[in-house]
Amino acid sequence: MPVPAPVLFPPFNIVRLSHVELGVTDLARSRAFYADLLGLQVTDETADAVYLRAMEERGHHCVALRRKPAPQVDVLGFKVFSEEDLDRAQAFFSGKGIETGWIERAHQGRTLFVCDPFGTPLEFYHRMDRLPHIHQKYALYKGVKALRIDHFNCFSPDVDASTQFYTEMGFRVTEYTEDEESKRLWAAWLHRKGGVHDIAFTHGRGPRLHHIAFWVPNPLNIIDLLDLMATTGHVGAIERGPGRHGISNAFFLYIRDPDGHRIEIYCSDYQTVDPDHEPIKWDLKDPQRQTLWGAPAPRSWFEEGSLFVGAELREGVLKAQPIVAP
Amino acid sequence: MPVPAPVLFPPFNIVRLSHVELGVTDLARSRAFYADLLGLQVTDETADAVYLRAMEERGHHCVALRRKPAPQVDVLGFKVFSEEDLDRAQAFFSGKGIETGWIERAHQGRTLFVCDPFGTPLEFYHRMDRLPHIHQKYALYKGVKALRIDHFNCFSPDVDASTQFYTEMGFRVTEYTEDEESKRLWAAWLHRKGGVHDIAFTHGRGPRLHHIAFWVPNPLNIIDLLDLMATTGHVGAIERGPGRHGISNAFFLYIRDPDGHRIEIYCSDYQTVDPDHEPIKWDLKDPQRQTLWGAPAPRSWFEEGSLFVGAELREGVLKAQPIVAP
Amino acid sequence: MPVPAPVLFPPFNIVRLSHVELGVTDLARSRAFYADLLGLQVTDETADAVYLRAMEERGHHCVALRRKPAPQVDVLGFKVFSEEDLDRAQAFFSGKGIETGWIERAHQGRTLFVCDPFGTPLEFYHRMDRLPHIHQKYALYKGVKALRIDHFNCFSPDVDASTQFYTEMGFRVTEYTEDEESKRLWAAWLHRKGGVHDIAFTHGRGPRLHHIAFWVPNPLNIIDLLDLMATTGHVGAIERGPGRHGISNAFFLYIRDPDGHRIEIYCSDYQTVDPDHEPIKWDLKDPQRQTLWGAPAPRSWFEEGSLFVGAELREGVLKAQPIVAP
Amino acid sequence: MPVPAPVLFPPFNIVRLSHVELGVTDLARSRAFYADLLGLQVTDETADAVYLRAMEERGHHCVALRRKPAPQVDVLGFKVFSEEDLDRAQAFFSGKGIETGWIERAHQGRTLFVCDPFGTPLEFYHRMDRLPHIHQKYALYKGVKALRIDHFNCFSPDVDASTQFYTEMGFRVTEYTEDEESKRLWAAWLHRKGGVHDIAFTHGRGPRLHHIAFWVPNPLNIIDLLDLMATTGHVGAIERGPGRHGISNAFFLYIRDPDGHRIEIYCSDYQTVDPDHEPIKWDLKDPQRQTLWGAPAPRSWFEEGSLFVGAELREGVLKAQPIVAP
Repeated sequence: MPVPAPVLFPPFNIVRLSHVELGVTDLARSRAFYADLLGLQVTDETADAVYLRAMEERGHHCVALRRKPAPQVDVLGFKVFSEEDLDRAQAFFSGKGIETGWIERAHQGRTLFVCDPFGTPLEFYHRMDRLPHIHQKYALYKGVKALRIDHFNCFSPDVDASTQFYTEMGFRVTEYTEDEESKRLWAAWLHRKGGVHDIAFTHGRGPRLHHIAFWVPNPLNIIDLLDLMATTGHVGAIERGPGRHGISNAFFLYIRDPDGHRIEIYCSDYQTVDPDHEPIKWDLKDPQRQTLWGAPAPRSWFEEGSLFVGAELREGVLKAQPIVAP
Repeated sequence: MPVPAPVLFPPFNIVRLSHVELGVTDLARSRAFYADLLGLQVTDETADAVYLRAMEERGHHCVALRRKPAPQVDVLGFKVFSEEDLDRAQAFFSGKGIETGWIERAHQGRTLFVCDPFGTPLEFYHRMDRLPHIHQKYALYKGVKALRIDHFNCFSPDVDASTQFYTEMGFRVTEYTEDEESKRLWAAWLHRKGGVHDIAFTHGRGPRLHHIAFWVPNPLNIIDLLDLMATTGHVGAIERGPGRHGISNAFFLYIRDPDGHRIEIYCSDYQTVDPDHEPIKWDLKDPQRQTLWGAPAPRSWFEEGSLFVGAELREGVLKAQPIVAP
Repeated sequence: MPVPAPVLFPPFNIVRLSHVELGVTDLARSRAFYADLLGLQVTDETADAVYLRAMEERGHHCVALRRKPAPQVDVLGFKVFSEEDLDRAQAFFSGKGIETGWIERAHQGRTLFVCDPFGTPLEFYHRMDRLPHIHQKYALYKGVKALRIDHFNCFSPDVDASTQFYTEMGFRVTEYTEDEESKRLWAAWLHRKGGVHDIAFTHGRGPRLHHIAFWVPNPLNIIDLLDLMATTGHVGAIERGPGRHGISNAFFLYIRDPDGHRIEIYCSDYQTVDPDHEPIKWDLKDPQRQTLWGAPAPRSWFEEGSLFVGAELREGVLKAQPIVAP
Repeated sequence: MPVPAPVLFPPFNIVRLSHVELGVTDLARSRAFYADLLGLQVTDETADAVYLRAMEERGHHCVALRRKPAPQVDVLGFKVFSEEDLDRAQAFFSGKGIETGWIERAHQGRTLFVCDPFGTPLEFYHRMDRLPHIHQKYALYKGVKALRIDHFNCFSPDVDASTQFYTEMGFRVTEYTEDEESKRLWAAWLHRKGGVHDIAFTHGRGPRLHHIAFWVPNPLNIIDLLDLMATTGHVGAIERGPGRHGISNAFFLYIRDPDGHRIEIYCSDYQTVDPDHEPIKWDLKDPQRQTLWGAPAPRSWFEEGSLFVGAELREGVLKAQPIVAP
């Protein structure tokens, strides 16, 4: 079962992933994590929420933290190209028999809420409050100096189905992992904005959020973050890396926020804007798929993820197992 | 005179800048420059031409060198989204009274050739030969390790007019410099592919090519190139930098190829995919516009450029002068 | 049992570690490893030996490879400050009842050979052939771009005894690990040349060579090496890292040469020239001792080492065990 | 007139340069410069003085700032190997007919004060208060993250005479610039601690302090500082660079503190501990001497310097002129 052909003229035009809304149990502790370690800038605060943006972003926020009794993921947000694309999106989802709703969101214009067929809560908007640029206010840079949100990665119990659905929405596959035995997808990376991915799916009990990634300038920023975390009481929050992914060729680090939400720090993938850009295929048994340098990921990386509000979990359809660190 | 509003639904869909064809007087010498110093990979060679691509590119070439009696620029190449976009492009140019032609190009499919209203030779194609990916063949990386072509920068005698025309073609302004006195544009940066620019215009005698830029991973690659050039007989080819541009925020270096064609090595600009991305305005008198750290560009940088084949030169319309190193 | 006080006016003046002579089973294969991956420059070759130096060294070699039927370490070499120091060294060792010999070595002046009380073969010289400087010949830099040999690390069955003996020779302890239970040394780092170490001892069956380290400019050189090794058939030779050591604060990578000799690539330790420089104590149970970022070393790192010619192995005296990766 | 042969067994043993005492006109403003931009840590403060150390230093301070009506340099400080070396130093200077004095200095033990024959105020000590190590307290790192003081550079009206005198004190020449015409020294770099220099002399009206240098980990720290200074009101304090020196091979930046005292940020020179380390000769007319990449230094760099308290200025003895930026 090969990857589906890209839908070059999709039913509505998604520009990029935009933001995530995370339920956190201790707002002050999480604020410190995102502001001091990741270097995100707080753009609004209420009693129950903190909004943050990365240093080169002009949209109001890429992360909204909300005080909740237990860790959860409220929604994954995407920006569409025009107001009309919101209506086209509604038509697309309705045509699939998916319930849609127009919701109110602080700092956003008209916002369409849906759950994808697997239960993942999504929202689409065209207008978000725009803020003055701060990418040259170098005195504000902190921690790992995150420049922008880069992608979401989700556990999916059926990566073929997820990839098929998001391809219909216009996402284009750049790299994928096949289970050689079943010839089914183990994982897929799909983009809208011209990098390796805006969203990826990894086989496993789901839907769950595997991680959110932030783009940083270069590997030395990641080394600085490791040194900072290791000497400020956060050494236990370092989960995997640093290393270079075979897939995406990015230099990476995985850390866990105070509620266990997984964050990837990511740099140096490549440009994929060509409509005839060919996906790269990887074999699940290739140890350099995970880490080009050979080190396998720990078991937690394959098993732990964040729950989406209201989503019903299903076990993965495949029997295949990735290579796990002993 | 403000910058023109973006044309969000342009008459035809340009994906990105693609390649340049340069006339060079000593093919072997130029081949060495592009392959050994820039680290481009030779993808085809004939008696009179050398084709090269950068390390993450899958299209056949981003530079074609052709043996010529004198240095010149034959054409700037752009990739469009579909074959139909080529026909729409022809209609657009014809509608402007511009002569168009379908030409044969090695390694390319159907190719439309036009000169823009200022005499700049352009070509548009949808299909170019695709090559296997080599971005993880690290033994091939050389010199500054150029990853991809990033942008063209051209002298224009009337930047307002050039910006207006390219805006109609769908390019969107990200940053610009205004001459405070005349309220006209001194320079403008316009993109298609989601970075700061695919093409920029700088006021001056034109049309001429100011430079071609290549993207590299980080500033240390540029420092490595400087060390290499300085100790292999190329110190005279270092023209300006290293430094950080105020405009684009990129870390840069300008060098000259053996025929004087100017090359920028460039990294770390920012993402501009949002359709409501607001352009940044700079004052021509701001010394940090050129270099954030304050160092002015040398006179050659404002005066010297490469001639486009067949283009008639006009003097610039403005009297304003940038800050020039003494 | 604390670390011994430094002997500030030692019996003879060792300037620095200088070179290692390695027995290798396939000279061409090892030459490729040291020249192409580490970037050492070949300075002499015979049918049975290859001599190499690092990029900022002016002494003739820091590594001599000799064809041997099995992997081995022939000798660790040290440079002394004057010819008179060689005679003083002989007196020192003779006074300890240690047999000494004056030997002939290609490219070296008068050379004193001894085995330390634990069986480690050592040689001392004052004069070695001096070569023109090449540190600014940037076209010669390759692979990880090693600048200089930095230190030796040896397994010792009795680190207290080894540390005591080398302290008498003038080496000064900069950091050490204590087994909290027995209050004995698990490991010690000792220097002559003003960095964290010229030689270190780690508890274990010995004497054996644990590793030789080379200094590189910055962590990105190490990342480049990992990418190169991972994509040229050397991924299996990557043993541990990259990471930052708690001890020494250095950024490190451990790889294995074709005969299994362990090589550390090392950067960014600190200056220790003050005679009153205080040693730093680490607890064997502190997981950040090995890697500041928390990742434990693999079992091979604690168990495997290179044999010194003629040395009789003894088991280590301590029962304590370091933290080992599962 | 060649450079003098090194005095390998000098009359007293200087370990390294240690600290500088600077007279500044606005203590708070200077404190901000050294603490926030250079990243030095304040270790003591009084109404009239601020003491600071760099991140890997354990001695109490490398910079003492004192409130003074006009900018000045009070003294250059050096650490000697033992208390006895202080007495030997006194004997050495007395033997030259130089007046010596034992002075009281906060945070230092017995301290010998002298002026060298050219009027430069020097002090020597063996004991300074030692502080706990902070090099792994990564949350404290700020600005350019200076790790240690690296060297002093002074204008001397007679570089031959200065080099001769400091050679007698045990400093060893590593690189030098000759005026080809007069065959006299234009500049010389001399070390004690095993790098390219602890002190250097440049021809010109003197004695004056040309600059103090701080060591940083890598060129990206310098780029970070440039970005920070350029966007926090300090762009005018950037005097020269970034670049790579031909001499020393170091990557450098020169900035000016609020009183005009010149600071070099410096990384990546090389090890010079061998007693037979051969000095490198440069020709004053070689444009790559100043900057390997070819850019000349500005006029201010050759003309401006800080006055030593009480020193009488003399004009330089040479007519030769270096290459100066137009």
